[in-house]
Amino acid sequence: MDAAVTGPAFDLSRWSSERLARVEQSLSAWVNPDAPAGLGEAMRYAVLDGGKRLRPLLVLAAAEAVQGNGQAALRAACSVELIHAYSLVHDDMPCMDNDVLRRGKPTVHVKFGQARALLAGDALQALAFELLAPEDEGIPAGVQAALCRLLAQAAGCHGMAGGQAIDLASVGRTLTENELRHMHRLKTGALLQASVMMGAACGAPAARAQNALSAYGAALGLAFQVVDDILDVTADSQTLGKTAGKDAEQDKPTYVSLLGLERSREHARELLVQSLSALDDSGLSDVRALRALARMVVEREN
Amino acid sequence: MDAAVTGPAFDLSRWSSERLARVEQSLSAWVNPDAPAGLGEAMRYAVLDGGKRLRPLLVLAAAEAVQGNGQAALRAACSVELIHAYSLVHDDMPCMDNDVLRRGKPTVHVKFGQARALLAGDALQALAFELLAPEDEGIPAGVQAALCRLLAQAAGCHGMAGGQAIDLASVGRTLTENELRHMHRLKTGALLQASVMMGAACGAPAARAQNALSAYGAALGLAFQVVDDILDVTADSQTLGKTAGKDAEQDKPTYVSLLGLERSREHARELLVQSLSALDDSGLSDVRALRALARMVVEREN
Repeated sequence: MDAAVTGPAFDLSRWSSERLARVEQSLSAWVNPDAPAGLGEAMRYAVLDGGKRLRPLLVLAAAEAVQGNGQAALRAACSVELIHAYSLVHDDMPCMDNDVLRRGKPTVHVKFGQARALLAGDALQALAFELLAPEDEGIPAGVQAALCRLLAQAAGCHGMAGGQAIDLASVGRTLTENELRHMHRLKTGALLQASVMMGAACGAPAARAQNALSAYGAALGLAFQVVDDILDVTADSQTLGKTAGKDAEQDKPTYVSLLGLERSREHARELLVQSLSALDDSGLSDVRALRALARMVVEREN
Repeated sequence: MDAAVTGPAFDLSRWSSERLARVEQSLSAWVNPDAPAGLGEAMRYAVLDGGKRLRPLLVLAAAEAVQGNGQAALRAACSVELIHAYSLVHDDMPCMDNDVLRRGKPTVHVKFGQARALLAGDALQALAFELLAPEDEGIPAGVQAALCRLLAQAAGCHGMAGGQAIDLASVGRTLTENELRHMHRLKTGALLQASVMMGAACGAPAARAQNALSAYGAALGLAFQVVDDILDVTADSQTLGKTAGKDAEQDKPTYVSLLGLERSREHARELLVQSLSALDDSGLSDVRALRALARMVVEREN
């Protein structure tokens, strides 16, 4: 029997909307407009009112699965979103992908100028770590330090930033599937997997659960990128909220260029199965939200 | 009697050279060349073999004054230097100050291209936080979390990044002395003061010592900037290792443009006295290195 269909029906959209309300409210409170000289405005523009908030939902779902500290989880959820948002701001800049449209709106540098976009990204990264180490919140220092460690590793040169460097260096080159996988594991996979592991770090899961969540996060992170590559080809800009067809136009290696559309879809399904079967091995009693999020990642249309 | 001349003679250059050797060795080990696609190379270029390392020395001097955890202090010392280095990389980029010379060498974007400079800066910021939260180093989690908090606050939108945003918005404007001070307190003062406070956080100083160190760091941070403004006018590019006369050329408000050269020098001396008298009130038994560093900041020639 397919483990994915066992258990009572789970309403992801209801589960998500309750949590997203808290995430949006917290982001709005923490990304404060009072930062000087228009910086706060640019930071808010980059973060608020947009995005699927997949990473925060993964943090919260994992934290709930391990009965983790709720306040730590909310902070971790917002902090990974800030890292994601800053990476988009910098990635859209003219010296990188030079994109003018993001979430259906002008990109930050188009709206606020390149200098302020650069600084807003920098300040969002700092704020992400600031959120993780509050002074008086009753979050154990060991949890705070673990969250900082996981986020820093995922964001840095052996994670997201490293993946973007490989991406830049790959334009116009043909990559093997191994090279492509390595690039994506760093570029998008590391932060998605870290979201899951940060949620786990809000509690004290057994080693078995921790390993299972790590495997789940790794498979889901790669699935996300495979689907991203598919959607870049199959969806239009309006549906995506960003410029479609950019990968081919910029001659970037993708799963679709490497494997073709059908084999890419198959690969996404295989990764979904991997992520779900990791959850089956976790020994955790309620992984319904994690399971539903993995399905959403693979079945999404934007 | 001038407190600055009490106590046995203190050899700052000997004190510094022993500590700088450790800092350089640690930076070289931690800023690893194996980051992918040339990113590690750009990061190392940005960090190694250059700079006065004032911030690391402040961390170590403060940590020694409070008998703090040595391993934590070394990590904190390197982490503030990484934040400083990343800010220079981004600040030099064409969309910011557009500078081609730094520490007597081509700036990172000149050498590695803008995209890689942007990513190297981003990755250095992440690495700074990664250094502060090691998994197995015997550094108490409470110290790790406090260091992350202090560094994030100093680097972010109410610290360094915020100060740079004000700086950008101030070009061609006349600022009052209060506005200028506010800009510099954020832009350079916050990270210098944080260096002192991070050193203090490696130990457990009494409130009196903590307040004194905070006042010392604030006065020293401002003094640093006043002297920077003076040197921009009085020193040549070779001595500075960066382009001299940039402030006037870019029509940036400075202490010299606001107060004139003589009054600026006087202000730097006043701030030195403030910083030294804060140390006198600290109740700490050995503040000789902190004292000597404050003198060095005000008396330096580059």
